[in-house]
Amino acid sequence: MREPLFRRLALIGIGHIGSSLARARRERGSIAAELVAHDSAPAVLDRVAALGIADRIEADLAAAVAEADGVILCTPVGTFAAIAQAIAPHLAQGAILSDVGSTKQSVLRDVGPLVPAGVHFVPAHPLAGTENSGPDSGFAALFEGRWCLLTPPPGTDPDAVARIAELWRRCGAMVEEMEPGHHDRVLAIVSHLPHLIAFTICGTADDLADESRRQVLKFAASGFRDFTRIAASDPTMWRDIFLNNREALLEMLARFLEDAQAMARAVRWGDGSYIEDKVNRGRKIRRSLIELKQA
Amino acid sequence: MREPLFRRLALIGIGHIGSSLARARRERGSIAAELVAHDSAPAVLDRVAALGIADRIEADLAAAVAEADGVILCTPVGTFAAIAQAIAPHLAQGAILSDVGSTKQSVLRDVGPLVPAGVHFVPAHPLAGTENSGPDSGFAALFEGRWCLLTPPPGTDPDAVARIAELWRRCGAMVEEMEPGHHDRVLAIVSHLPHLIAFTICGTADDLADESRRQVLKFAASGFRDFTRIAASDPTMWRDIFLNNREALLEMLARFLEDAQAMARAVRWGDGSYIEDKVNRGRKIRRSLIELKQA
Repeated sequence: MREPLFRRLALIGIGHIGSSLARARRERGSIAAELVAHDSAPAVLDRVAALGIADRIEADLAAAVAEADGVILCTPVGTFAAIAQAIAPHLAQGAILSDVGSTKQSVLRDVGPLVPAGVHFVPAHPLAGTENSGPDSGFAALFEGRWCLLTPPPGTDPDAVARIAELWRRCGAMVEEMEPGHHDRVLAIVSHLPHLIAFTICGTADDLADESRRQVLKFAASGFRDFTRIAASDPTMWRDIFLNNREALLEMLARFLEDAQAMARAVRWGDGSYIEDKVNRGRKIRRSLIELKQA
Repeated sequence: MREPLFRRLALIGIGHIGSSLARARRERGSIAAELVAHDSAPAVLDRVAALGIADRIEADLAAAVAEADGVILCTPVGTFAAIAQAIAPHLAQGAILSDVGSTKQSVLRDVGPLVPAGVHFVPAHPLAGTENSGPDSGFAALFEGRWCLLTPPPGTDPDAVARIAELWRRCGAMVEEMEPGHHDRVLAIVSHLPHLIAFTICGTADDLADESRRQVLKFAASGFRDFTRIAASDPTMWRDIFLNNREALLEMLARFLEDAQAMARAVRWGDGSYIEDKVNRGRKIRRSLIELKQA
Protein backbone atom coordinates (compact mmCIF):
# COMPACT_ATOMS: atom_id res chain seq x y z
CA MET A 1 0.00 0.00 0.00
CA ARG A 2 1.12 3.56 -0.70
CA GLU A 3 2.36 5.73 2.15
CA PRO A 4 -0.48 7.95 3.48
CA LEU A 5 -0.27 11.51 2.11
CA PHE A 6 -0.88 13.06 5.51
CA ARG A 7 0.11 11.99 8.98
CA ARG A 8 -2.84 13.78 10.55
CA LEU A 9 -5.58 15.36 8.43
CA ALA A 10 -8.09 17.70 10.09
CA LEU A 11 -11.45 18.32 8.45
CA ILE A 12 -13.24 21.47 9.62
CA GLY A 13 -16.98 20.97 8.97
CA ILE A 14 -18.47 17.53 8.36
CA GLY A 15 -21.39 18.07 6.02
CA HIS A 16 -21.99 16.50 2.63
CA ILE A 17 -18.48 17.14 1.28
CA GLY A 18 -16.55 16.74 4.55
CA SER A 19 -18.22 13.43 5.36
CA SER A 20 -17.68 12.19 1.78
CA LEU A 21 -13.99 13.01 2.10
CA ALA A 22 -13.87 11.23 5.48
CA ARG A 23 -15.52 8.18 3.94
CA ALA A 24 -13.20 8.22 0.91
CA ARG A 25 -10.24 8.35 3.31
CA ARG A 26 -11.62 5.42 5.33
CA GLU A 27 -12.05 3.31 2.17
CA ARG A 28 -8.70 4.26 0.64
CA GLY A 29 -5.95 3.80 3.22
CA SER A 30 -3.49 6.05 1.41
CA ILE A 31 -4.92 9.48 2.21
CA ALA A 32 -4.21 10.10 5.90
CA ALA A 33 -2.87 7.98 8.75
CA GLU A 34 -5.16 9.81 11.20
CA LEU A 35 -8.32 11.79 10.57
CA VAL A 36 -9.58 14.42 13.01
CA ALA A 37 -13.09 15.80 12.51
CA HIS A 38 -14.32 19.14 13.81
CA ASP A 39 -17.78 20.64 13.47
CA SER A 40 -19.35 23.58 15.28
CA ALA A 41 -22.58 21.59 15.75
CA PRO A 42 -22.34 19.02 18.58
CA ALA A 43 -25.11 16.94 16.95
CA VAL A 44 -22.99 16.60 13.80
CA LEU A 45 -19.99 15.42 15.80
CA ASP A 46 -22.19 12.83 17.53
CA ARG A 47 -23.27 11.54 14.11
CA VAL A 48 -19.65 11.43 12.93
CA ALA A 49 -18.77 9.36 15.98
CA ALA A 50 -21.71 7.03 15.39
CA LEU A 51 -20.82 6.67 11.71
CA GLY A 52 -17.22 5.88 12.60
CA ILE A 53 -15.80 7.94 9.74
CA ALA A 54 -13.13 9.77 11.79
CA ASP A 55 -10.43 8.57 14.21
CA ARG A 56 -11.12 11.44 16.56
CA ILE A 57 -13.83 14.06 16.90
CA GLU A 58 -12.79 17.38 18.29
CA ALA A 59 -15.21 20.14 19.34
CA ASP A 60 -12.40 22.64 19.89
CA LEU A 61 -11.07 24.27 16.72
CA ALA A 62 -7.56 24.91 18.03
CA ALA A 63 -7.22 21.33 19.27
CA ALA A 64 -8.58 20.00 15.95
CA VAL A 65 -5.79 21.57 13.89
CA ALA A 66 -2.96 21.19 16.41
CA GLU A 67 -0.14 19.06 14.96
CA ALA A 68 -2.13 18.33 11.81
CA ASP A 69 -0.02 18.39 8.63
CA GLY A 70 -3.18 18.89 6.56
CA VAL A 71 -6.25 21.02 7.33
CA ILE A 72 -9.23 21.26 5.00
CA LEU A 73 -12.06 23.73 5.49
CA CYS A 74 -15.36 22.07 4.53
CA THR A 75 -17.82 24.67 5.88
CA PRO A 76 -19.83 27.28 3.93
CA VAL A 77 -17.45 29.90 2.46
CA GLY A 78 -18.99 32.66 4.60
CA THR A 79 -17.43 31.07 7.71
CA PHE A 80 -13.86 30.94 6.37
CA ALA A 81 -12.60 34.31 7.66
CA ALA A 82 -13.63 33.58 11.25
CA ILE A 83 -12.29 30.03 11.13
CA ALA A 84 -8.98 31.15 9.63
CA GLN A 85 -8.67 33.74 12.41
CA ALA A 86 -9.33 31.11 15.06
CA ILE A 87 -6.99 28.43 13.74
CA ALA A 88 -4.09 30.54 12.42
CA PRO A 89 -2.13 30.62 15.72
CA HIS A 90 -2.49 26.85 16.10
CA LEU A 91 -1.46 25.66 12.64
CA ALA A 92 1.71 23.55 12.64
CA GLN A 93 4.78 24.70 10.74
CA GLY A 94 4.85 23.08 7.30
CA ALA A 95 1.14 22.22 7.41
CA ILE A 96 -0.98 22.57 4.29
CA LEU A 97 -4.22 24.54 4.61
CA SER A 98 -6.83 23.86 1.94
CA ASP A 99 -10.61 24.08 1.49
CA VAL A 100 -13.47 22.85 -0.71
CA GLY A 101 -15.28 26.17 -1.24
CA SER A 102 -17.21 26.94 -4.42
CA THR A 103 -15.90 30.53 -4.67
CA LYS A 104 -12.15 31.03 -4.87
CA GLN A 105 -11.43 34.76 -5.01
CA SER A 106 -13.27 35.14 -1.71
CA VAL A 107 -11.16 32.39 -0.13
CA LEU A 108 -7.96 34.11 -1.18
CA ARG A 109 -9.37 37.38 0.15
CA ASP A 110 -10.70 36.00 3.46
CA VAL A 111 -8.11 33.35 4.32
CA GLY A 112 -4.97 34.31 2.41
CA PRO A 113 -3.83 37.21 4.63
CA LEU A 114 -4.31 35.13 7.79
CA VAL A 115 -2.13 32.19 6.77
CA PRO A 116 1.02 32.19 8.98
CA ALA A 117 4.48 32.06 7.46
CA GLY A 118 5.56 28.45 7.06
CA VAL A 119 2.01 27.22 6.37
CA HIS A 120 1.16 26.35 2.75
CA PHE A 121 -2.15 27.60 1.40
CA VAL A 122 -3.68 25.60 -1.47
CA PRO A 123 -7.35 26.48 -2.16
CA ALA A 124 -9.28 23.73 -3.90
CA HIS A 125 -12.79 23.11 -5.19
CA PRO A 126 -14.04 19.59 -5.91
CA LEU A 127 -16.89 19.98 -8.44
CA ALA A 128 -19.00 17.34 -6.79
CA GLY A 129 -22.00 17.12 -4.54
CA THR A 130 -25.63 16.22 -4.61
CA GLU A 131 -28.61 18.26 -3.43
CA ASN A 132 -28.35 16.54 -0.05
CA SER A 133 -26.59 17.89 3.03
CA GLY A 134 -25.33 16.77 6.41
CA PRO A 135 -22.93 14.03 7.58
CA ASP A 136 -25.30 11.18 6.70
CA SER A 137 -25.58 12.25 3.05
CA GLY A 138 -21.91 11.76 2.12
CA PHE A 139 -20.50 8.78 0.25
CA ALA A 140 -16.98 7.67 -0.60
CA ALA A 141 -17.51 7.59 -4.37
CA LEU A 142 -18.75 11.20 -4.59
CA PHE A 143 -15.54 12.50 -6.16
CA GLU A 144 -14.92 9.66 -8.60
CA GLY A 145 -14.57 10.91 -12.14
CA ARG A 146 -15.31 14.49 -11.09
CA TRP A 147 -13.07 17.53 -11.48
CA CYS A 148 -11.23 19.20 -8.63
CA LEU A 149 -9.93 22.70 -9.39
CA LEU A 150 -6.92 24.11 -7.50
CA THR A 151 -6.28 27.86 -7.31
CA PRO A 152 -2.96 28.23 -5.46
CA PRO A 153 -1.70 31.82 -5.12
CA PRO A 154 1.46 32.66 -7.12
CA GLY A 155 4.59 31.38 -5.37
CA THR A 156 2.88 28.54 -3.50
CA ASP A 157 5.22 25.64 -2.72
CA PRO A 158 4.85 23.20 -5.66
CA ASP A 159 5.17 20.21 -3.30
CA ALA A 160 2.19 21.41 -1.27
CA VAL A 161 0.13 21.88 -4.46
CA ALA A 162 1.16 18.40 -5.60
CA ARG A 163 0.12 16.89 -2.28
CA ILE A 164 -3.40 18.41 -2.42
CA ALA A 165 -3.68 17.39 -6.08
CA GLU A 166 -2.71 13.84 -5.12
CA LEU A 167 -5.23 13.79 -2.26
CA TRP A 168 -8.05 14.49 -4.72
CA ARG A 169 -6.68 12.03 -7.25
CA ARG A 170 -6.68 9.36 -4.56
CA CYS A 171 -10.38 10.22 -4.01
CA GLY A 172 -10.92 9.43 -7.68
CA ALA A 173 -11.05 13.02 -8.98
CA MET A 174 -9.33 14.64 -11.97
CA VAL A 175 -7.33 17.71 -11.02
CA GLU A 176 -6.69 20.98 -12.84
CA GLU A 177 -5.15 24.30 -11.79
CA MET A 178 -7.02 27.50 -12.59
CA GLU A 179 -6.67 31.22 -11.97
CA PRO A 180 -9.17 32.09 -9.17
CA GLY A 181 -10.93 34.89 -11.08
CA HIS A 182 -11.41 32.60 -14.04
CA HIS A 183 -12.64 29.85 -11.73
CA ASP A 184 -15.29 32.18 -10.31
CA ARG A 185 -16.52 33.21 -13.77
CA VAL A 186 -16.74 29.64 -15.06
CA LEU A 187 -18.51 28.46 -11.91
CA ALA A 188 -20.88 31.44 -12.09
CA ILE A 189 -22.27 30.16 -15.38
CA VAL A 190 -22.01 26.36 -14.92
CA SER A 191 -23.20 26.21 -11.32
CA HIS A 192 -24.13 29.39 -9.49
CA LEU A 193 -26.48 30.87 -12.12
CA PRO A 194 -28.32 27.55 -12.73
CA HIS A 195 -28.86 27.25 -8.99
CA LEU A 196 -30.05 30.85 -8.70
CA ILE A 197 -32.51 30.26 -11.55
CA ALA A 198 -33.75 27.01 -10.02
CA PHE A 199 -34.35 28.65 -6.62
CA THR A 200 -36.09 31.57 -8.34
CA ILE A 201 -38.50 29.53 -10.46
CA CYS A 202 -39.44 27.46 -7.42
CA GLY A 203 -40.27 30.71 -5.65
CA THR A 204 -42.26 31.97 -8.65
CA ALA A 205 -44.30 28.75 -8.64
CA ASP A 206 -44.72 28.90 -4.88
CA ASP A 207 -46.24 32.38 -5.19
CA LEU A 208 -49.06 31.19 -7.46
CA ALA A 209 -52.62 30.94 -6.18
CA ASP A 210 -53.30 27.76 -4.21
CA GLU A 211 -55.11 25.86 -6.95
CA SER A 212 -52.38 26.53 -9.53
CA ARG A 213 -49.60 25.70 -7.05
CA ARG A 214 -51.19 22.33 -6.34
CA GLN A 215 -51.28 21.67 -10.07
CA VAL A 216 -47.65 22.73 -10.50
CA LEU A 217 -46.73 19.91 -8.13
CA LYS A 218 -49.14 17.49 -9.77
CA PHE A 219 -47.90 18.11 -13.30
CA ALA A 220 -44.25 18.86 -12.46
CA ALA A 221 -42.96 16.04 -14.65
CA SER A 222 -43.46 18.28 -17.70
CA GLY A 223 -40.12 20.06 -17.21
CA PHE A 224 -40.41 21.88 -13.89
CA ARG A 225 -39.21 18.79 -12.01
CA ASP A 226 -35.79 18.97 -13.68
CA PHE A 227 -35.30 22.38 -12.10
CA THR A 228 -36.27 21.36 -8.60
CA ARG A 229 -33.56 18.79 -7.92
CA ILE A 230 -30.80 21.36 -7.71
CA ALA A 231 -33.17 23.68 -5.83
CA ALA A 232 -33.14 21.28 -2.87
CA SER A 233 -29.64 22.31 -1.83
CA ASP A 234 -28.35 23.72 1.46
CA PRO A 235 -29.54 27.33 2.07
CA THR A 236 -26.53 28.56 4.08
CA MET A 237 -24.04 27.14 1.62
CA TRP A 238 -25.78 28.75 -1.34
CA ARG A 239 -26.35 32.07 0.40
CA ASP A 240 -22.61 32.20 1.03
CA ILE A 241 -21.72 31.21 -2.53
CA PHE A 242 -23.96 33.89 -4.03
CA LEU A 243 -22.64 36.59 -1.70
CA ASN A 244 -19.03 35.56 -2.26
CA ASN A 245 -19.16 35.38 -6.04
CA ARG A 246 -21.23 38.51 -6.41
CA GLU A 247 -19.50 40.20 -9.34
CA ALA A 248 -19.28 37.17 -11.62
CA LEU A 249 -22.74 35.92 -10.69
CA LEU A 250 -24.37 39.31 -11.30
CA GLU A 251 -22.61 39.58 -14.64
CA MET A 252 -23.78 36.16 -15.81
CA LEU A 253 -27.26 36.81 -14.44
CA ALA A 254 -27.40 40.14 -16.29
CA ARG A 255 -26.44 38.40 -19.55
CA PHE A 256 -29.04 35.72 -18.94
CA LEU A 257 -31.75 38.29 -18.14
CA GLU A 258 -30.96 40.23 -21.32
CA ASP A 259 -31.25 36.99 -23.29
CA ALA A 260 -34.51 36.07 -21.54
CA GLN A 261 -35.92 39.54 -22.32
CA ALA A 262 -34.93 39.08 -25.96
CA MET A 263 -36.74 35.75 -25.94
CA ALA A 264 -39.81 37.41 -24.37
CA ARG A 265 -39.73 40.01 -27.13
CA ALA A 266 -39.53 37.29 -29.80
CA VAL A 267 -42.52 35.53 -28.24
CA ARG A 268 -44.50 38.78 -28.02
CA TRP A 269 -43.82 39.79 -31.63
CA GLY A 270 -44.06 36.29 -33.09
CA ASP A 271 -40.44 36.07 -34.22
CA GLY A 272 -40.42 32.31 -34.86
CA SER A 273 -36.98 32.13 -36.44
CA TYR A 274 -35.35 33.79 -33.41
CA ILE A 275 -36.97 31.21 -31.13
CA GLU A 276 -35.98 28.30 -33.39
CA ASP A 277 -32.39 29.56 -33.46
CA LYS A 278 -32.25 29.58 -29.65
CA VAL A 279 -33.68 26.07 -29.40
CA ASN A 280 -31.16 24.88 -31.96
CA ARG A 281 -28.33 26.32 -29.89
CA GLY A 282 -29.67 24.47 -26.86
CA ARG A 283 -29.62 21.24 -28.86
CA LYS A 284 -26.09 21.91 -30.05
CA ILE A 285 -24.85 22.39 -26.47
CA ARG A 286 -26.61 19.23 -25.34
CA ARG A 287 -25.05 17.27 -28.22
CA SER A 288 -21.61 18.60 -27.29
CA LEU A 289 -22.11 17.37 -23.74
CA ILE A 290 -23.13 13.94 -25.01
CA GLU A 291 -20.03 13.82 -27.22
CA LEU A 292 -17.86 14.81 -24.25
CA LYS A 293 -19.65 12.18 -22.15
CA GLN A 294 -20.71 14.89 -19.69
CA ALA A 295 -24.46 14.55 -20.32
CA MET B 1 -59.81 -9.12 -25.16
CA ARG B 2 -61.68 -5.85 -25.04
CA GLU B 3 -63.34 -4.50 -28.17
CA PRO B 4 -61.04 -1.96 -29.92
CA LEU B 5 -62.09 1.63 -29.16
CA PHE B 6 -61.79 2.70 -32.79
CA ARG B 7 -62.46 0.86 -36.02
CA ARG B 8 -59.94 2.99 -37.92
CA LEU B 9 -57.69 5.47 -36.16
CA ALA B 10 -55.73 8.00 -38.25
CA LEU B 11 -52.63 9.65 -36.80
CA ILE B 12 -51.60 12.87 -38.51
CA GLY B 13 -47.85 13.35 -37.88
CA ILE B 14 -45.62 10.50 -36.72
CA GLY B 15 -42.93 12.08 -34.57
CA HIS B 16 -42.05 11.27 -30.97
CA ILE B 17 -45.66 11.31 -29.68
CA GLY B 18 -47.37 9.93 -32.80
CA SER B 19 -44.98 7.01 -33.07
CA SER B 20 -45.28 6.30 -29.33
CA LEU B 21 -49.06 6.21 -29.71
CA ALA B 22 -48.73 3.90 -32.74
CA ARG B 23 -46.43 1.60 -30.73
CA ALA B 24 -48.76 1.61 -27.70
CA ARG B 25 -51.64 0.67 -30.02
CA ARG B 26 -49.58 -2.16 -31.55
CA GLU B 27 -48.76 -3.56 -28.11
CA ARG B 28 -52.24 -3.17 -26.68
CA GLY B 29 -54.79 -4.66 -29.09
CA SER B 30 -57.70 -2.77 -27.63
CA ILE B 31 -57.10 0.73 -29.03
CA ALA B 32 -57.86 0.55 -32.75
CA ALA B 33 -58.63 -2.27 -35.18
CA GLU B 34 -56.78 -0.41 -37.94
CA LEU B 35 -54.15 2.31 -37.72
CA VAL B 36 -53.49 4.71 -40.61
CA ALA B 37 -50.39 6.92 -40.41
CA HIS B 38 -49.94 10.19 -42.28
CA ASP B 39 -46.91 12.46 -42.26
CA SER B 40 -46.02 15.34 -44.57
CA ALA B 41 -42.41 14.09 -44.77
CA PRO B 42 -42.00 11.10 -47.11
CA ALA B 43 -38.88 10.01 -45.24
CA VAL B 44 -40.91 9.74 -42.01
CA LEU B 45 -43.52 7.58 -43.73
CA ASP B 46 -40.77 5.31 -45.06
CA ARG B 47 -39.49 4.88 -41.48
CA VAL B 48 -43.00 4.16 -40.22
CA ALA B 49 -43.35 1.46 -42.88
CA ALA B 50 -39.95 0.00 -41.98
CA LEU B 51 -40.80 0.06 -38.25
CA GLY B 52 -44.12 -1.67 -38.93
CA ILE B 53 -46.00 0.46 -36.41
CA ALA B 54 -48.99 1.25 -38.69
CA ASP B 55 -51.29 -0.89 -40.81
CA ARG B 56 -51.26 1.62 -43.62
CA ILE B 57 -49.21 4.68 -44.45
CA GLU B 58 -50.95 7.41 -46.35
CA ALA B 59 -49.21 10.43 -47.89
CA ASP B 60 -52.51 12.09 -48.81
CA LEU B 61 -54.22 13.87 -45.91
CA ALA B 62 -57.76 13.47 -47.26
CA ALA B 63 -57.25 9.74 -47.87
CA ALA B 64 -55.70 9.33 -44.41
CA VAL B 65 -58.79 10.55 -42.58
CA ALA B 66 -61.42 9.14 -44.93
CA GLU B 67 -63.71 6.70 -43.11
CA ALA B 68 -61.66 6.95 -39.90
CA ASP B 69 -63.79 7.07 -36.75
CA GLY B 70 -60.87 8.60 -34.87
CA VAL B 71 -58.35 11.23 -36.05
CA ILE B 72 -55.54 12.53 -33.84
CA LEU B 73 -53.34 15.48 -34.80
CA CYS B 74 -49.76 14.78 -33.64
CA THR B 75 -47.94 17.62 -35.45
CA PRO B 76 -46.62 20.90 -34.01
CA VAL B 77 -49.56 23.12 -32.95
CA GLY B 78 -48.65 25.75 -35.56
CA THR B 79 -49.75 23.37 -38.32
CA PHE B 80 -53.21 22.64 -36.90
CA ALA B 81 -55.18 25.36 -38.72
CA ALA B 82 -53.96 24.30 -42.16
CA ILE B 83 -54.44 20.60 -41.41
CA ALA B 84 -57.95 21.18 -40.06
CA GLN B 85 -58.80 23.13 -43.20
CA ALA B 86 -57.50 20.31 -45.39
CA ILE B 87 -59.19 17.42 -43.60
CA ALA B 88 -62.51 19.02 -42.59
CA PRO B 89 -64.39 18.10 -45.81
CA HIS B 90 -63.18 14.50 -45.58
CA LEU B 91 -63.97 13.70 -41.93
CA ALA B 92 -66.57 10.96 -41.52
CA GLN B 93 -69.88 11.67 -39.77
CA GLY B 94 -69.62 10.69 -36.11
CA ALA B 95 -65.80 10.68 -36.17
CA ILE B 96 -63.87 12.02 -33.18
CA LEU B 97 -61.16 14.60 -33.90
CA SER B 98 -58.50 15.00 -31.21
CA ASP B 99 -54.90 16.15 -30.88
CA VAL B 100 -51.87 15.98 -28.58
CA GLY B 101 -50.88 19.67 -28.64
CA SER B 102 -49.24 21.38 -25.67
CA THR B 103 -51.34 24.57 -26.00
CA LYS B 104 -55.10 24.20 -25.80
CA GLN B 105 -56.67 27.64 -26.27
CA SER B 106 -54.92 27.89 -29.63
CA VAL B 107 -56.30 24.51 -30.68
CA LEU B 108 -59.83 25.60 -29.86
CA ARG B 109 -59.20 28.84 -31.77
CA ASP B 110 -57.52 27.26 -34.82
CA VAL B 111 -59.39 23.98 -35.17
CA GLY B 112 -62.71 24.52 -33.36
CA PRO B 113 -64.44 26.66 -36.02
CA LEU B 114 -63.46 24.24 -38.81
CA VAL B 115 -64.92 21.09 -37.26
CA PRO B 116 -67.92 20.02 -39.37
CA ALA B 117 -71.32 19.36 -37.78
CA GLY B 118 -71.56 15.72 -36.77
CA VAL B 119 -67.82 15.45 -35.95
CA HIS B 120 -66.83 15.42 -32.26
CA PHE B 121 -63.92 17.61 -31.21
CA VAL B 122 -62.04 16.51 -28.07
CA PRO B 123 -58.69 18.31 -27.62
CA ALA B 124 -56.20 16.40 -25.47
CA HIS B 125 -52.67 16.82 -24.16
CA PRO B 126 -50.67 13.86 -22.91
CA LEU B 127 -48.02 15.28 -20.54
CA ALA B 128 -45.33 12.97 -21.78
CA GLY B 129 -42.32 13.08 -24.03
CA THR B 130 -38.57 13.05 -23.87
CA GLU B 131 -36.14 15.50 -25.42
CA ASN B 132 -35.92 13.22 -28.49
CA SER B 133 -37.88 13.59 -31.70
CA GLY B 134 -38.81 11.66 -34.83
CA PRO B 135 -40.50 8.28 -35.46
CA ASP B 136 -37.54 6.25 -34.17
CA SER B 137 -37.59 7.95 -30.77
CA GLY B 138 -41.06 6.80 -29.70
CA PHE B 139 -41.79 3.95 -27.32
CA ALA B 140 -44.99 2.21 -26.22
CA ALA B 141 -44.53 2.88 -22.49
CA LEU B 142 -44.14 6.66 -22.91
CA PHE B 143 -47.59 7.44 -21.53
CA GLU B 144 -47.59 4.98 -18.64
CA GLY B 145 -48.28 6.69 -15.33
CA ARG B 146 -48.35 10.12 -16.99
CA TRP B 147 -51.23 12.58 -17.07
CA CYS B 148 -53.36 13.30 -20.11
CA LEU B 149 -55.44 16.48 -19.91
CA LEU B 150 -58.65 16.83 -21.94
CA THR B 151 -60.13 20.25 -22.74
CA PRO B 152 -63.42 19.53 -24.55
CA PRO B 153 -65.46 22.64 -25.46
CA PRO B 154 -68.77 23.05 -23.58
CA GLY B 155 -71.47 20.83 -25.02
CA THR B 156 -69.14 18.18 -26.43
CA ASP B 157 -70.75 14.73 -26.65
CA PRO B 158 -69.86 12.97 -23.37
CA ASP B 159 -69.47 9.63 -25.18
CA ALA B 160 -66.78 11.13 -27.45
CA VAL B 161 -64.96 12.57 -24.42
CA ALA B 162 -65.18 9.20 -22.68
CA ARG B 163 -63.77 7.43 -25.73
CA ILE B 164 -60.68 9.71 -25.92
CA ALA B 165 -60.24 9.40 -22.14
CA GLU B 166 -60.38 5.62 -22.49
CA LEU B 167 -57.84 5.67 -25.35
CA TRP B 168 -55.30 7.39 -23.10
CA ARG B 169 -56.12 5.15 -20.16
CA ARG B 170 -55.46 2.15 -22.37
CA CYS B 171 -52.06 3.71 -23.15
CA GLY B 172 -51.41 3.70 -19.40
CA ALA B 173 -52.13 7.39 -18.72
CA MET B 174 -54.22 9.03 -15.99
CA VAL B 175 -56.87 11.38 -17.41
CA GLU B 176 -58.26 14.66 -16.14
CA GLU B 177 -60.49 17.33 -17.70
CA MET B 178 -59.43 20.95 -17.49
CA GLU B 179 -60.61 24.33 -18.72
CA PRO B 180 -58.34 25.28 -21.69
CA GLY B 181 -57.28 28.67 -20.32
CA HIS B 182 -56.35 27.10 -17.02
CA HIS B 183 -54.47 24.34 -18.86
CA ASP B 184 -52.41 26.94 -20.69
CA ARG B 185 -51.52 28.80 -17.49
CA VAL B 186 -50.52 25.65 -15.63
CA LEU B 187 -48.47 24.39 -18.57
CA ALA B 188 -46.84 27.80 -18.94
CA ILE B 189 -45.27 27.45 -15.51
CA VAL B 190 -44.63 23.69 -15.33
CA SER B 191 -43.37 23.21 -18.86
CA HIS B 192 -43.16 26.17 -21.23
CA LEU B 193 -41.26 28.55 -18.93
CA PRO B 194 -38.73 25.89 -17.81
CA HIS B 195 -38.05 25.10 -21.46
CA LEU B 196 -37.72 28.79 -22.36
CA ILE B 197 -35.25 29.26 -19.50
CA ALA B 198 -33.26 26.18 -20.50
CA PHE B 199 -32.99 27.31 -24.13
CA THR B 200 -32.00 30.79 -22.96
CA ILE B 201 -29.23 29.75 -20.58
CA CYS B 202 -27.77 27.46 -23.24
CA GLY B 203 -27.67 30.47 -25.56
CA THR B 204 -26.10 32.64 -22.85
CA ALA B 205 -23.37 30.03 -22.36
CA ASP B 206 -22.92 29.63 -26.10
CA ASP B 207 -22.24 33.38 -26.39
CA LEU B 208 -19.27 33.26 -24.01
CA ALA B 209 -15.74 33.64 -25.31
CA ASP B 210 -14.29 30.41 -26.73
CA GLU B 211 -12.17 29.47 -23.75
CA SER B 212 -15.01 29.90 -21.27
CA ARG B 213 -17.47 28.06 -23.51
CA ARG B 214 -15.14 25.08 -23.67
CA GLN B 215 -14.98 25.08 -19.89
CA VAL B 216 -18.76 25.33 -19.57
CA LEU B 217 -18.95 22.03 -21.42
CA LYS B 218 -16.08 20.52 -19.45
CA PHE B 219 -17.50 21.43 -16.04
CA ALA B 220 -21.21 21.16 -16.94
CA ALA B 221 -21.86 18.55 -14.27
CA SER B 222 -21.96 21.32 -11.65
CA GLY B 223 -25.60 22.17 -12.38
CA PHE B 224 -25.68 23.44 -15.94
CA ARG B 225 -26.08 19.89 -17.26
CA ASP B 226 -29.48 19.54 -15.57
CA PHE B 227 -30.73 22.43 -17.70
CA THR B 228 -29.49 21.09 -21.02
CA ARG B 229 -31.53 17.91 -21.17
CA ILE B 230 -34.81 19.70 -21.77
CA ALA B 231 -32.99 22.13 -24.07
CA ALA B 232 -32.40 19.32 -26.58
CA SER B 233 -36.03 19.34 -27.71
CA ASP B 234 -37.53 19.86 -31.16
CA PRO B 235 -37.21 23.48 -32.39
CA THR B 236 -40.37 23.64 -34.53
CA MET B 237 -42.51 22.11 -31.81
CA TRP B 238 -41.26 24.56 -29.20
CA ARG B 239 -41.42 27.58 -31.48
CA ASP B 240 -45.09 26.75 -32.04
CA ILE B 241 -45.78 26.18 -28.35
CA PHE B 242 -44.25 29.53 -27.35
CA LEU B 243 -46.10 31.43 -30.08
CA ASN B 244 -49.40 29.70 -29.28
CA ASN B 245 -49.31 30.20 -25.53
CA ARG B 246 -48.02 33.73 -25.74
CA GLU B 247 -50.14 35.43 -23.09
CA ALA B 248 -49.71 32.86 -20.33
CA LEU B 249 -46.04 32.31 -21.11
CA LEU B 250 -45.24 36.04 -21.11
CA GLU B 251 -47.08 36.46 -17.84
CA MET B 252 -45.19 33.63 -16.12
CA LEU B 253 -41.91 34.82 -17.65
CA ALA B 254 -42.57 38.36 -16.38
CA ARG B 255 -43.19 37.02 -12.87
CA PHE B 256 -40.02 34.94 -13.06
CA LEU B 257 -37.96 37.89 -14.34
CA GLU B 258 -39.22 40.10 -11.52
CA ASP B 259 -38.25 37.40 -9.04
CA ALA B 260 -34.83 36.97 -10.67
CA GLN B 261 -34.27 40.75 -10.52
CA ALA B 262 -35.21 40.70 -6.83
CA MET B 263 -32.67 37.92 -6.32
CA ALA B 264 -30.04 39.94 -8.20
CA ARG B 265 -30.76 42.89 -5.93
CA ALA B 266 -30.39 40.68 -2.83
CA VAL B 267 -27.03 39.41 -4.13
CA ARG B 268 -25.85 42.94 -4.93
CA TRP B 269 -26.82 44.34 -1.54
CA GLY B 270 -25.80 41.31 0.46
CA ASP B 271 -29.30 40.44 1.69
CA GLY B 272 -28.48 36.94 2.95
CA SER B 273 -31.81 36.25 4.63
CA TYR B 274 -33.71 36.95 1.39
CA ILE B 275 -31.50 34.46 -0.45
CA GLU B 276 -31.84 31.84 2.28
CA ASP B 277 -35.62 32.22 2.21
CA LYS B 278 -35.69 31.58 -1.55
CA VAL B 279 -33.48 28.51 -1.23
CA ASN B 280 -35.72 27.22 1.54
CA ARG B 281 -38.76 27.60 -0.70
CA GLY B 282 -36.99 25.62 -3.40
CA ARG B 283 -36.31 22.86 -0.90
CA LYS B 284 -39.92 22.87 0.24
CA ILE B 285 -41.18 22.47 -3.33
CA ARG B 286 -38.71 19.64 -3.94
CA ARG B 287 -39.83 17.89 -0.76
CA SER B 288 -43.47 18.23 -1.82
CA LEU B 289 -42.62 16.55 -5.13
CA ILE B 290 -40.87 13.72 -3.32
CA GLU B 291 -43.91 13.26 -1.07
CA LEU B 292 -46.18 13.21 -4.12
CA LYS B 293 -43.80 10.74 -5.78
CA GLN B 294 -43.33 13.16 -8.70
CA ALA B 295 -39.61 13.80 -8.09
